[in-house]
Amino acid sequence: MSKKLSKITFSLDNAPSIRSFASIVGEKEGEGPLAAYFDMTTKDDYFGQDTWEKAESEFLNTAVNTALSKAELAQKDIDMIFAGDLLNQCISSTYGLRDFDIAVVGIFGACSTFAQGLMLSSLFVDNELADNVIAATSSHFSTAERQFRFPLSYGGQRTPTSQWTVTGSGAVVVSKSSEPPFVRGVTIGTIVDLGVNDANNMGAAMAPAAARTIKQYLDDTSTNPNDYDYIITGDLGEVGSELLIELLNREGIDISSVHRDCGKMIFDSDKQDTHAGGSGCGCCASVMCGYFLPKIKSGEIKNVLLAATGALMSTTASQQGESIPSISHLVHISNERGNER
Amino acid sequence: MSKKLSKITFSLDNAPSIRSFASIVGEKEGEGPLAAYFDMTTKDDYFGQDTWEKAESEFLNTAVNTALSKAELAQKDIDMIFAGDLLNQCISSTYGLRDFDIAVVGIFGACSTFAQGLMLSSLFVDNELADNVIAATSSHFSTAERQFRFPLSYGGQRTPTSQWTVTGSGAVVVSKSSEPPFVRGVTIGTIVDLGVNDANNMGAAMAPAAARTIKQYLDDTSTNPNDYDYIITGDLGEVGSELLIELLNREGIDISSVHRDCGKMIFDSDKQDTHAGGSGCGCCASVMCGYFLPKIKSGEIKNVLLAATGALMSTTASQQGESIPSISHLVHISNERGNER
Repeated sequence: MSKKLSKITFSLDNAPSIRSFASIVGEKEGEGPLAAYFDMTTKDDYFGQDTWEKAESEFLNTAVNTALSKAELAQKDIDMIFAGDLLNQCISSTYGLRDFDIAVVGIFGACSTFAQGLMLSSLFVDNELADNVIAATSSHFSTAERQFRFPLSYGGQRTPTSQWTVTGSGAVVVSKSSEPPFVRGVTIGTIVDLGVNDANNMGAAMAPAAARTIKQYLDDTSTNPNDYDYIITGDLGEVGSELLIELLNREGIDISSVHRDCGKMIFDSDKQDTHAGGSGCGCCASVMCGYFLPKIKSGEIKNVLLAATGALMSTTASQQGESIPSISHLVHISNERGNER
Repeated sequence: MSKKLSKITFSLDNAPSIRSFASIVGEKEGEGPLAAYFDMTTKDDYFGQDTWEKAESEFLNTAVNTALSKAELAQKDIDMIFAGDLLNQCISSTYGLRDFDIAVVGIFGACSTFAQGLMLSSLFVDNELADNVIAATSSHFSTAERQFRFPLSYGGQRTPTSQWTVTGSGAVVVSKSSEPPFVRGVTIGTIVDLGVNDANNMGAAMAPAAARTIKQYLDDTSTNPNDYDYIITGDLGEVGSELLIELLNREGIDISSVHRDCGKMIFDSDKQDTHAGGSGCGCCASVMCGYFLPKIKSGEIKNVLLAATGALMSTTASQQGESIPSISHLVHISNERGNER
């Protein structure tokens, strides 16, 4: 049973294991610095489908099937899937999963979805509600652009603070197992809204949510940043990352040497013209499943916190002058399952 | 700890209690057959806001505050909120909850959201992950019409199978308590897609999902429809309800005498011109919180299954010719907590 360290932070005493992980990305991601790490890279952003939305579903479907296959499990072995995405009504997940004969718990956390799904999956396994659970999410540059910004054919100029939505998907199978990586703890996020209303500067809107959740976990576990190899955020990008470090500095917490941001890692902004970095549910999911989780499994990396953030707005809300509420859910992932750190 | 009856059905041995419930609805709902049962009815569908989307958030916010007040609890007593809705990126929930200093787990289940949130809240309380959890959802006729169908000013004619989105919200507080109503069991839904692609006939698309989940729960608990006072669906409406009864009849399960549908109950279709009935996340939420839960608390109704259904499509998916995948999550709610039925 999970031990409650506070109302929203849990120590997972059975240390559920991330039994397998899979990442599928598009062409641009396959030309970036992490190209070598993904399970599959495709040059076809339509992924064999006739629309980008169907392509995004296919990315998610393929990531789930790849994770299943890497775990050497069949559909019948899976208790349930936690999945969500940023398309209106989460259609990437619902259409991507409809052919599976597996229960689905739809979740919504914007770009925090991967951490949210991993957190809920780990809680279910840790509390023996499930033996094998899948968490999955996705995003696609072309579906996001036309839904959230402009028709691609419009060719509008992007602001310097804007981010580039990752085309890709990541999926994990969480199981009770003695093999690393283990999920050792989680913190459920609280919505933070400091009044940022620039929809082209999501990093600034989301940084305060990450700061709050990271501080909460460190406080609740009486640990400090040096207890972790890395404290990873999902897609704060250049602007949000700087802000996060500054916000935590003000609280007397220095994460500058251990902070990494999936959005900054996935593209080479100078060469790939991605401005402040990558974003989208698939950013954190593919970088965790492609780059970090294999290294934690092998022991090259021992101990990380993932605090993924989500901007909880819509185009309608922005058009009505609203600011951008954000949330950050956290998972502590480790090579070791012991209770001592 | 919850007892697993199958991978997706749990018997909740601690029988978490629905400590309070609140329902807030709009003008048309306040003129319907259930008018007397809601906590609050407003004639102002803007609810004091300047847009319908902000109004929907305000409905949800008010329902949560009313549930808190009826439970005699403060924000600090609540561990977390499970919430979601059908607006793009679930903005009714995220904006409606941003002023609360409470952790939020965003969920997406379309019109099954109320049952999904109650299911997850009950699992968290039953497994001692939380002491007090809120589940909330909402919908609004005017936000749904302009997002999913046509601008209201267009005044398009509605098909006979179409349903009328409920303006309203429902919220519950789930706690460990010895007072009824108790949540005794849950089944997590699996996506079902039989190829229905008429977005004006959601009931037909969703009925197979309800049939699957109801059969699963009855099978897993070795119970039959006569063990329950009512088997309630969320918003199948006239068409979907008939289909559900027929689908279950084919499996040898006769629910015709105990079936009730919140979508059929909330409006008088003949007098109110609502065609096949009410729909939307707020339909099931407000009817359960306004009508059924008080009667289960008092003992007038002893034992019900709620199998709420969600149509997991979007306008983009429909425009691309897709059929409508659906899901149904189930909660068993009872006046008694004993293990015997």
